[in-house]
Amino acid sequence: MLTIKRLSLADAHLLLEGAKARAVQIGVPMCIAITDESGQLIAFERMDGGKITSTVIAQDKAYTAAGAKRTTESYGVASQPGSPAYGINSAIGGRLLVVAGGLPVIADGEVVGAIGVSSGTPAQDTECAQAGIDHFVRQQTGND
Amino acid sequence: MLTIKRLSLADAHLLLEGAKARAVQIGVPMCIAITDESGQLIAFERMDGGKITSTVIAQDKAYTAAGAKRTTESYGVASQPGSPAYGINSAIGGRLLVVAGGLPVIADGEVVGAIGVSSGTPAQDTECAQAGIDHFVRQQTGND
Amino acid sequence: MLTIKRLSLADAHLLLEGAKARAVQIGVPMCIAITDESGQLIAFERMDGGKITSTVIAQDKAYTAAGAKRTTESYGVASQPGSPAYGINSAIGGRLLVVAGGLPVIADGEVVGAIGVSSGTPAQDTECAQAGIDHFVRQQTGND
Amino acid sequence: MLTIKRLSLADAHLLLEGAKARAVQIGVPMCIAITDESGQLIAFERMDGGKITSTVIAQDKAYTAAGAKRTTESYGVASQPGSPAYGINSAIGGRLLVVAGGLPVIADGEVVGAIGVSSGTPAQDTECAQAGIDHFVRQQTGND
Repeated sequence: MLTIKRLSLADAHLLLEGAKARAVQIGVPMCIAITDESGQLIAFERMDGGKITSTVIAQDKAYTAAGAKRTTESYGVASQPGSPAYGINSAIGGRLLVVAGGLPVIADGEVVGAIGVSSGTPAQDTECAQAGIDHFVRQQTGND
Repeated sequence: MLTIKRLSLADAHLLLEGAKARAVQIGVPMCIAITDESGQLIAFERMDGGKITSTVIAQDKAYTAAGAKRTTESYGVASQPGSPAYGINSAIGGRLLVVAGGLPVIADGEVVGAIGVSSGTPAQDTECAQAGIDHFVRQQTGND
Repeated sequence: MLTIKRLSLADAHLLLEGAKARAVQIGVPMCIAITDESGQLIAFERMDGGKITSTVIAQDKAYTAAGAKRTTESYGVASQPGSPAYGINSAIGGRLLVVAGGLPVIADGEVVGAIGVSSGTPAQDTECAQAGIDHFVRQQTGND
Repeated sequence: MLTIKRLSLADAHLLLEGAKARAVQIGVPMCIAITDESGQLIAFERMDGGKITSTVIAQDKAYTAAGAKRTTESYGVASQPGSPAYGINSAIGGRLLVVAGGLPVIADGEVVGAIGVSSGTPAQDTECAQAGIDHFVRQQTGND
């Protein structure tokens, strides 16, 4: 039997909170999805003005980051023409996202979930996703 | 040009809040989805212990209730064998849900969004969805 | 509660009318889709001789332009190899179109819907989509 | 943070072993799928002569049993015409299986995975799935 660590809904709220705060700062209404370590949705928010297409893309970025235990941005690099993972973007019915904005959430060296952000530029999406993780880590540490 | 009223993220939080409070009361961890009037996701929460299958079903109950402007339960009645909507449950790739737990959210006589709840019995799901709407309506009125 | 502006069916007819007139001028029978601001279909026409594959592609171009609030052509540029949105074309089950021919329809600075055209070259598709918008804007202004 | 118990691959082998032994006894080559508690595949075997359609159905039975924390057979009962879950069979793109043969695997009161069997009659499928669980439980106990 395996023992797995997984984000709780309370953890997901911290991730959402941090990401939203940054989105407000940079003035871009975002779609933000939090999944568990298996890529299954825990929480989602579309800020007023977030893009419709991003309701799916944010979830799939988080699914990809959790499921593959890596950033979606790293897949973008690995899937360029001529690179080994070329074409991987259309795998799993197109759910495997290779655009930046999906980050695994790691605790004690294990992937415990993921955050996916979409509606801005990929760089803005990543910035907000990272802000979510930073906020989560600070709160976790503060709770110790 | 049409003018449409739509739930904001703040409204969605009220719906979530009311539904979660009832779910806690009855001791059933739920998946709760809030969509806008077009069935597009605004907010989602899986309470700790909510079912994996319900992450999709809750969203699709809300999609159905918003999109068809009726409760999913009413579709259950209308789609029984021999009834006019028989077989409608597999429409839209199976997204059209005919199991109770999806309710449209109505303001000033217009559908402005929907709430879909899943993980309990259909009766429990409906009870929590209705509690979400009741809480939302109370707060809306209180804000007037 | 949010208030959203959305194309009416009468508006959609104007968009279709303008796009079809240009399609006749250039001698290319087109598929033309008009969606609302959420990417949901309002009107569609396949001119006699329009391509079967374009019945889907035109709808998805409009869905993308409305949902992401940008032209599909701009996604074509942003998703070239080495660019930030590389690989986005297969997102949302492949519905996210990055080929020119999808344009958001904007009124008073808000996206109120979109037009997607397909069957010609991407340049011809865009030309007809733009002609639809131009006709719509002229009529709107004329009505003021 | 949550702590989750999950079947290991070694556990999955025990489940497969027990199910296959019974399938050989009754002379029905089966497709057997083992998923984790999130419905994600851990192991799968199609015995020589197992049905092609069952390669998907066995997986979806296990997915359903894990994700909804109940037997697929119980869904068959609950989804009969006139019953509360009527129509649930087409949910999640038809992945929600209501035909017997999917059983959750429970350890210390928690669902830790599931087994789905297909190719025989639903009663035979269930018999083999249960044989898999019985074998797993005996070995687990024996290891204590």
